[in-house]
Amino acid sequence: MRHLEGVPRVNVQTADLSSPSSPTLTLRRVGLQTYGEYVAFLSSACSAYKPESFANINKIEVRGPAGRTIVATINIVENGDLLDPFSLGLSSNAFHALKEPEGSQVMMNLARPPHSLDFVRQKIRGEVLRSSEISEIIGDIAAHRYSKAEITAFLVASAAFLTSDEVLALTKAMANAGTRISWNRPPCNFQVVMDKHCVGGIPGNRTSMIVVPIVAACGLPIPKTSSRAITSAAGTADTMEMLANVDVDLARMQDIVGAHKGCLVWGGHVNLSPADDVLISVERPLGIDTPEQMVASILSKKAAAGSTHLLIDIPIGPTAKVRSAREAARLRKLFQFVGHAMGIDVDVMMTDGTQPIGSGIGPVLEARDVMAILRNDPAAPRDLRERALQLAGAILEFDPALKGGDGLPLARKTLENGDALKAMLNIMHAQGPSPCPTPLGSHHKEICAVAGGIIRAIDCERIGRIARLAGAPVSKGAGIDLLKKVGDSVKAGEPLYRIHAAVDTDFMFATEMAHDAPGYEIR
Amino acid sequence: MRHLEGVPRVNVQTADLSSPSSPTLTLRRVGLQTYGEYVAFLSSACSAYKPESFANINKIEVRGPAGRTIVATINIVENGDLLDPFSLGLSSNAFHALKEPEGSQVMMNLARPPHSLDFVRQKIRGEVLRSSEISEIIGDIAAHRYSKAEITAFLVASAAFLTSDEVLALTKAMANAGTRISWNRPPCNFQVVMDKHCVGGIPGNRTSMIVVPIVAACGLPIPKTSSRAITSAAGTADTMEMLANVDVDLARMQDIVGAHKGCLVWGGHVNLSPADDVLISVERPLGIDTPEQMVASILSKKAAAGSTHLLIDIPIGPTAKVRSAREAARLRKLFQFVGHAMGIDVDVMMTDGTQPIGSGIGPVLEARDVMAILRNDPAAPRDLRERALQLAGAILEFDPALKGGDGLPLARKTLENGDALKAMLNIMHAQGPSPCPTPLGSHHKEICAVAGGIIRAIDCERIGRIARLAGAPVSKGAGIDLLKKVGDSVKAGEPLYRIHAAVDTDFMFATEMAHDAPGYEIR
Repeated sequence: MRHLEGVPRVNVQTADLSSPSSPTLTLRRVGLQTYGEYVAFLSSACSAYKPESFANINKIEVRGPAGRTIVATINIVENGDLLDPFSLGLSSNAFHALKEPEGSQVMMNLARPPHSLDFVRQKIRGEVLRSSEISEIIGDIAAHRYSKAEITAFLVASAAFLTSDEVLALTKAMANAGTRISWNRPPCNFQVVMDKHCVGGIPGNRTSMIVVPIVAACGLPIPKTSSRAITSAAGTADTMEMLANVDVDLARMQDIVGAHKGCLVWGGHVNLSPADDVLISVERPLGIDTPEQMVASILSKKAAAGSTHLLIDIPIGPTAKVRSAREAARLRKLFQFVGHAMGIDVDVMMTDGTQPIGSGIGPVLEARDVMAILRNDPAAPRDLRERALQLAGAILEFDPALKGGDGLPLARKTLENGDALKAMLNIMHAQGPSPCPTPLGSHHKEICAVAGGIIRAIDCERIGRIARLAGAPVSKGAGIDLLKKVGDSVKAGEPLYRIHAAVDTDFMFATEMAHDAPGYEIR
Repeated sequence: MRHLEGVPRVNVQTADLSSPSSPTLTLRRVGLQTYGEYVAFLSSACSAYKPESFANINKIEVRGPAGRTIVATINIVENGDLLDPFSLGLSSNAFHALKEPEGSQVMMNLARPPHSLDFVRQKIRGEVLRSSEISEIIGDIAAHRYSKAEITAFLVASAAFLTSDEVLALTKAMANAGTRISWNRPPCNFQVVMDKHCVGGIPGNRTSMIVVPIVAACGLPIPKTSSRAITSAAGTADTMEMLANVDVDLARMQDIVGAHKGCLVWGGHVNLSPADDVLISVERPLGIDTPEQMVASILSKKAAAGSTHLLIDIPIGPTAKVRSAREAARLRKLFQFVGHAMGIDVDVMMTDGTQPIGSGIGPVLEARDVMAILRNDPAAPRDLRERALQLAGAILEFDPALKGGDGLPLARKTLENGDALKAMLNIMHAQGPSPCPTPLGSHHKEICAVAGGIIRAIDCERIGRIARLAGAPVSKGAGIDLLKKVGDSVKAGEPLYRIHAAVDTDFMFATEMAHDAPGYEIR
């Protein structure tokens, strides 16, 4: 088969339309959100360039007067409403990347499709790619040279299989495609940098906000960058934002960690592994989620963040992301192989993922639980406290100066004597006040057991969905407060959890879904 | 792994926003060509619906006042330039599908992602899909319910492997997703319907326009629908259009074939296998081209067209689409397996694909060659004539009344006695005059041999590219006229071929590419 056939090739490789005599078009910004893709708009009535020649071509190169170029997907605008025939429109992200004002005279080219698409086609055919080939693909993806369909092709072809060496090459390429933080210089001068990551899927599992202050209080650097929630009811960044500012740039983050050994900030300003962000924006809606892509995603971000020691938390449970010990074991091996080759000391902890952790689910409720634990409030959820202590203990044991087995007791002592709370308050103070302090959603309703019995299981996926339906994480005060956990006995009519919401319709949808099936198995 | 995770699920499954109290928006048409995808536009300032809740959601359902609904990908418009906050914009194709006038009050819903995406995820994980699952996927694709990225995911996952049964299910589903022509009723009442198809890749190989009149003149029905060129310098529809109208609807096509046994029309009006058109629009730019997808694509169109007997031409050559006899043999088996199961009698002819066929490449030049052959002009290209006779002979042998081996002599007699020319003229007359009679491109230049010798090979791919660069098929009079073929001897400075173009820049690009490397191997 002539697999490499691609329609646009012919024109694309030679038809340089921006020779000195090429016509120019007037640059316009077109206010369309394109979710990461650079898009250019050309009127079908344009006479300077022939719009019909773009019918089977996707990409053009736009050149500004200063010589800067960007590659964008071209859309033809049918009539004069959006764009006159003498203008070239650019979506906001592409417009900003070109760095030219509206009204500039720009030229366009048919863009050569990225050469690395040949490697994607090789992968589609089932071939093993070389490290340099993967690196070229990732470079082009990070530079927004791939369309969504092309990214999908790479992801799906890779989902069929990736060798361990390909996963390693992918991880390295992704880590190298953006900012790489170095902690081994002022103001920090750290030789070791701790980090933790949970593969996710467990509502309420907000351990980072307890682990970071414990580890920092013990003197080990742990600069934590987190994402906002994508598929869950709250991310660490969303929850921390209820307590402090998380929009912190790299220089300020380094100052904070230099002074306090820890931070809990949103990773969005730091540009770590930007290719990963692009890949995730395509993976998530499609639900592509292989061990290989998970490992590359996580370790590329950690390598770029300069972490030297990393603890991975893999919760295992029938409604968690990882559903069997066998899957978790495979994932662990891959984390260790790639981590080792990247120079990161990776430890993997497999934890119980059979039900949500803690009580609160949603930013405000989770922040409440975290602070209760740090304050040693006896009413604070014990499972979240114990999980966080175990993880913190394992991280402390990365310290060669600590005797084996002393990690957990040291973590517990640091929490109980208030040092962890102090560290957390210092970090919060250094990051600045929350930009959006939010009360708990004022609509609330208790969801009750229909019949009595012992609680056998809680469905993590369903509880997460109900919390999202209630409005979390966009509506920070929305979520679920769990009143019963697995093993508890309930009577008929006794409340299982409370739904909080801030918006009428959210409240209605969430309570309806909870009434349909609350996500509890009681026998 | 929790593979089925998809961000939008939560809201999507239950948040029906179009309850009786739902707000309405004013419908606007947005003149953006979206290459088949339905796109909706909503202002970020819209207060009736919360635009931020669409950040991770791709699809909405739009409901018009008459109750008709369409599903569209949503784009958020950042400012008021394109769209006011009280309007919902629809791309032209989506606007037409909704069948409501501008200014109508429409409601929107978060659309439930097609259930069949679960099957796509299964395929990504390497599972074998059931016939009903494939059928659901194809139905959703034909109804424009998949985004480009989702279609890509299906195609790439299928490129990893498809069992023969899956190819069959795919073919059936695609054939059933659009119009199915029945010839076994007035005005035709045909029991058998002949068809031919070439898998492509050979410039100038315009055999259909000779085969159809020969077969029709012998009394066998052969209603040929063809595509326009996508990756080549000319399709049969482009070339026939130089001689006659090809924009014919189904009723007229049936009248023509009833009267003359044959036709040569563009398939665009007949809506055969619309899912195939959608798949091709994604496959081509990505260069995905597996035997399985080729077989499903071709046979679904032929089954929908009502063909009972089909001859497949597979040219084999180092620069053709199929590059080895082994690949061709595998392809043949698959054509036969699926064809048989679909009730089509498939014969496969493997032909020499080592160089272009005929002399002309490009619509006007190819039409010239075809008519020269039908007129028994002694200067007409012999290789195209012989290839067409062989194919026509094989089709005639589908007739059980014909003695084995009599097909080729009958085809030759029908051509030589002028019956084929008469049949062609009748078909042309019935289809009506060409809407765009075009002269040969007035710019022309001969590309000459740098050194003398025997021509050992001609690169089909490169010749096709140069012809496209010269403007074919958009510029009908553009193309290449081959003056030497493999085995001919040339002296230094003797012309190999002539480039024709209608546009200055096309001419320049094509001659430059030809001078770089003419695509001839001479030793």
